[in-house]
Amino acid sequence: MKIRESALAATTNNITKEMDAWGAADLLEFRMDKAANPINQLSKYNGNIPIIATNRTRWFGGQATDTGRLDSLFSASRFDAVKFVDIELETVRSKSWITHEFRENDVDLIISHHDFDNTPSREIIDKIFEQCARYGDIAKVATFPQDQTDTLALLEAVNAATEKGIDVAGISMGKIGSHTRVIGHLYGSKLSYAPLLADDTDYAPGQIPLEKLASLIEITKNNGVDDQVISMIEDEVSVPKGLTL
Amino acid sequence: MKIRESALAATTNNITKEMDAWGAADLLEFRMDKAANPINQLSKYNGNIPIIATNRTRWFGGQATDTGRLDSLFSASRFDAVKFVDIELETVRSKSWITHEFRENDVDLIISHHDFDNTPSREIIDKIFEQCARYGDIAKVATFPQDQTDTLALLEAVNAATEKGIDVAGISMGKIGSHTRVIGHLYGSKLSYAPLLADDTDYAPGQIPLEKLASLIEITKNNGVDDQVISMIEDEVSVPKGLTL
Repeated sequence: MKIRESALAATTNNITKEMDAWGAADLLEFRMDKAANPINQLSKYNGNIPIIATNRTRWFGGQATDTGRLDSLFSASRFDAVKFVDIELETVRSKSWITHEFRENDVDLIISHHDFDNTPSREIIDKIFEQCARYGDIAKVATFPQDQTDTLALLEAVNAATEKGIDVAGISMGKIGSHTRVIGHLYGSKLSYAPLLADDTDYAPGQIPLEKLASLIEITKNNGVDDQVISMIEDEVSVPKGLTL
Repeated sequence: MKIRESALAATTNNITKEMDAWGAADLLEFRMDKAANPINQLSKYNGNIPIIATNRTRWFGGQATDTGRLDSLFSASRFDAVKFVDIELETVRSKSWITHEFRENDVDLIISHHDFDNTPSREIIDKIFEQCARYGDIAKVATFPQDQTDTLALLEAVNAATEKGIDVAGISMGKIGSHTRVIGHLYGSKLSYAPLLADDTDYAPGQIPLEKLASLIEITKNNGVDDQVISMIEDEVSVPKGLTL
């Protein structure tokens, strides 16, 4: 399943809700690791929103646990509704053969890397995007910014990878990076994620709920200030060229 | 008048409107060059929103015209309501003595540079900000992007100048740069501009009207995704450190 324009994925641990719960979502990211009976939920799912199956582990170290986790993810990938599987770059680097097995179930691969503490340098993020793209169809990188320079480094890397023809998803996390969830698509990010908490849980302060994120993204899509208006309003000034410094 | 937080300026050629026309504006940018009887309008103005007086010329070349324009701007700066005067970098570079004259009228100076065709390199924008700051209190740079790399260059320069302690306003113009009007404050930009068309003119498509820009900026101020929520929702995953590339 090729993503042509940026898509909005609702992250959830319960896909058995009524369809109207998903509102503006183009995709559902099903967090199997947080779900009750995930395979059972998938077998009951009869919605028409394509699913991204994600099954994170707390530690990559434990081989047995990791195998069980991947087996479960593999079972998920057999369902027709599952169009994408999200696998961590760290996982595929040590088991690159799994990508072929997953592809036989007719799913595309999101290869992801997360750094919850820091943002690597621009050059390192570039390399991570390239590595993710080597294994998968969409290269996803989420990093935690210490300051605004870090959010710009992530956006720059998203932009540069997009210009190279890589399908990417890029997020600068935390409060400082929050706006990258809204404007990332302008730099080429193909996926935005909006968490859906359980129905009986209020949205936590500061979080961008699905509907709000959807409308913010829509505004940035439609409300480009067009050139004619700019030149009409901002200025009728001609500035001499060749300002010397 | 020191701007501590980012302020929203409504750009207008008519300051004789009723006060409620200005809505969320913190400042009015009065475009004297487009106004009918600007000095007369200033003498009648009894609002409490501080004014930025701006008087652009089509050409900087003509000395006589420029002198008349600056005389008019100087007259404007005598009014109590006028707290800022916007002067082009190109103008003060050739007539640096005028900054002292203006300051005697108790106004702060916004020194501005516009490039309506291109975005200079990051290093050149840095230098333009520094030059503007040498003459004025707020250094304003508006550039036209050819692509997303250009909008990031402008944001990077805004961020870097802010980190150096310079009060800046930075805008990447046109459709591609439109979102910088919304998120610029997150990188330190002290002024956003929203055009107010004449009351009998509809907003042109693509433009960000005052009230919408105000609410978008407010959302980006309040809706940071807080760290706790991120770590709760986005992941309970621990990623091994030291990913080798």
